[in-house]
Amino acid sequence: MKFLVTGATGYIGRNLTRKLVDLGNDVCVIVRPGSDTSFLKGLAPSVRLATYSGSISELQTILAEFAPDVVFHLASYFKADHITSDVVPMIEANVLFGAQLLESMRVAGVNKIVCASTAWEHFEDSDFDPVCLYAATKKAFEDILTFYAQARGLSAVILKIFECFGPDDPRRKIFSLLTDLSSQNAAPLGMTAGQQRLHCVYIDDIVAAFIAAGDDLLKIEQSGVQTFALSSDRPVSLRELVADFEAVVGRSLPIIWGERPYRQREVMEPWSKGVRLPGWVPKVSLRAGIAKLIKNQD
Amino acid sequence: MKFLVTGATGYIGRNLTRKLVDLGNDVCVIVRPGSDTSFLKGLAPSVRLATYSGSISELQTILAEFAPDVVFHLASYFKADHITSDVVPMIEANVLFGAQLLESMRVAGVNKIVCASTAWEHFEDSDFDPVCLYAATKKAFEDILTFYAQARGLSAVILKIFECFGPDDPRRKIFSLLTDLSSQNAAPLGMTAGQQRLHCVYIDDIVAAFIAAGDDLLKIEQSGVQTFALSSDRPVSLRELVADFEAVVGRSLPIIWGERPYRQREVMEPWSKGVRLPGWVPKVSLRAGIAKLIKNQD
Repeated sequence: MKFLVTGATGYIGRNLTRKLVDLGNDVCVIVRPGSDTSFLKGLAPSVRLATYSGSISELQTILAEFAPDVVFHLASYFKADHITSDVVPMIEANVLFGAQLLESMRVAGVNKIVCASTAWEHFEDSDFDPVCLYAATKKAFEDILTFYAQARGLSAVILKIFECFGPDDPRRKIFSLLTDLSSQNAAPLGMTAGQQRLHCVYIDDIVAAFIAAGDDLLKIEQSGVQTFALSSDRPVSLRELVADFEAVVGRSLPIIWGERPYRQREVMEPWSKGVRLPGWVPKVSLRAGIAKLIKNQD
Repeated sequence: MKFLVTGATGYIGRNLTRKLVDLGNDVCVIVRPGSDTSFLKGLAPSVRLATYSGSISELQTILAEFAPDVVFHLASYFKADHITSDVVPMIEANVLFGAQLLESMRVAGVNKIVCASTAWEHFEDSDFDPVCLYAATKKAFEDILTFYAQARGLSAVILKIFECFGPDDPRRKIFSLLTDLSSQNAAPLGMTAGQQRLHCVYIDDIVAAFIAAGDDLLKIEQSGVQTFALSSDRPVSLRELVADFEAVVGRSLPIIWGERPYRQREVMEPWSKGVRLPGWVPKVSLRAGIAKLIKNQD
């Protein structure tokens, strides 16, 4: 099959691209000029590279020429706390680019898409209360998506991601912080009281969810938007996560609990109302995932 | 009081600006370079003109210097049926500019806004099913607005407009079409079967709603988004509207009913689930409004 991937230079995107190639598919990735595409080494000739520098005509050409069976849309601009200079690039990446992509799909007759989204649209288990501007822009894109599904025959699956972790994640997130703290002679670090609970899902399971969602789309003809949650079997508190980390590395981490306040809109309990992607269950336990992460780090 | 108006060169915007000035307020309007600002003649010195050519820093300067009590956000890019070349300007005008405005308000400490929106977000009385891409982009902006209200203390009112009519409306809409048809020797025009029903509200009533919503915001301190419908007392079918038009002009209009099909997503029944703006009732009846429109046209 032929799959188009946006955001292929990101952590989930590059792992998804590699897996799609391993499964024998033709893959086209859309990248910005100047993006680091070193992750593609060894994947050619199954992966073709298409460049997008802001113009919808570039996307129209890519969609028309490659004619993918399914589009995986993972491109996004993420900041947990935005500053003023983030507003324009965030809207451009998370709303404008997505709208251009959908319009180009419509023109080219490509009508299946799987989109990465975030459980952070649902602060305090709300139907919609975005934790941050990033989450609001993801929802804004989904409104545009709804138009193309309701009025233009698009079939879409939105996958709402919680915490994703795995080896070689370049993003500065909690798992990379804990990895750093597990090295010998790491300096003590002040953290919050650690009662916030997280759904942690290993990267291979996230990738498997995207592939399963794409397979599901290939089997259906009706248009519309379906939204699913990529939740783990049980959310763990940050304290529990650290305890698991310590058990795996066989060393206690130098954390000073309660030294920092929770952030203004800290997510204490993850969204619980989402329906998990049917047929998908995460296979890698938290401890097994941490072990893979640590092993790869050595 | 000090009011900032976006979209002041549009039909509702210019009427709102004039009314705000008539009521003795200071008004600042944000216009694009090259916009036709002839409507401002006679309104100076109560109206100051600020130019926005795409940069958020321009908006930050305007908001900080003028420090309005309330912002009226009416700027939008409207197409009932978009084509590919509309996608970028529509997202830029309806989402990106709005996000820049909200961020600039936050930085300047301006926290009250009244936003124009559309009942077309609610095809077939849905909670959200946009009739067209325009309606989807309005909703996308409202998601961004929700973030600033929930997380940054903004107080917002969204007013959902149905059909607005009045004299000197430059927009090619049903009322201008009927005005043309009411002139002697107008050529016959094929229309749909005419059973679609519309809420028609006269421009002065629309303007009064915006001013009432602004007044309400000035009285409250709590943040959040409130959404209200600017509906008439009773929707009329296009056939009934034409009958009223004919009664006022004293002449039958040369319409061939049923010659054209309804459009793909024709709104046959207007959104009925909206809560009307409290304390506001339209005062100008359909016939009285048509009479004013015709009189002004002569």
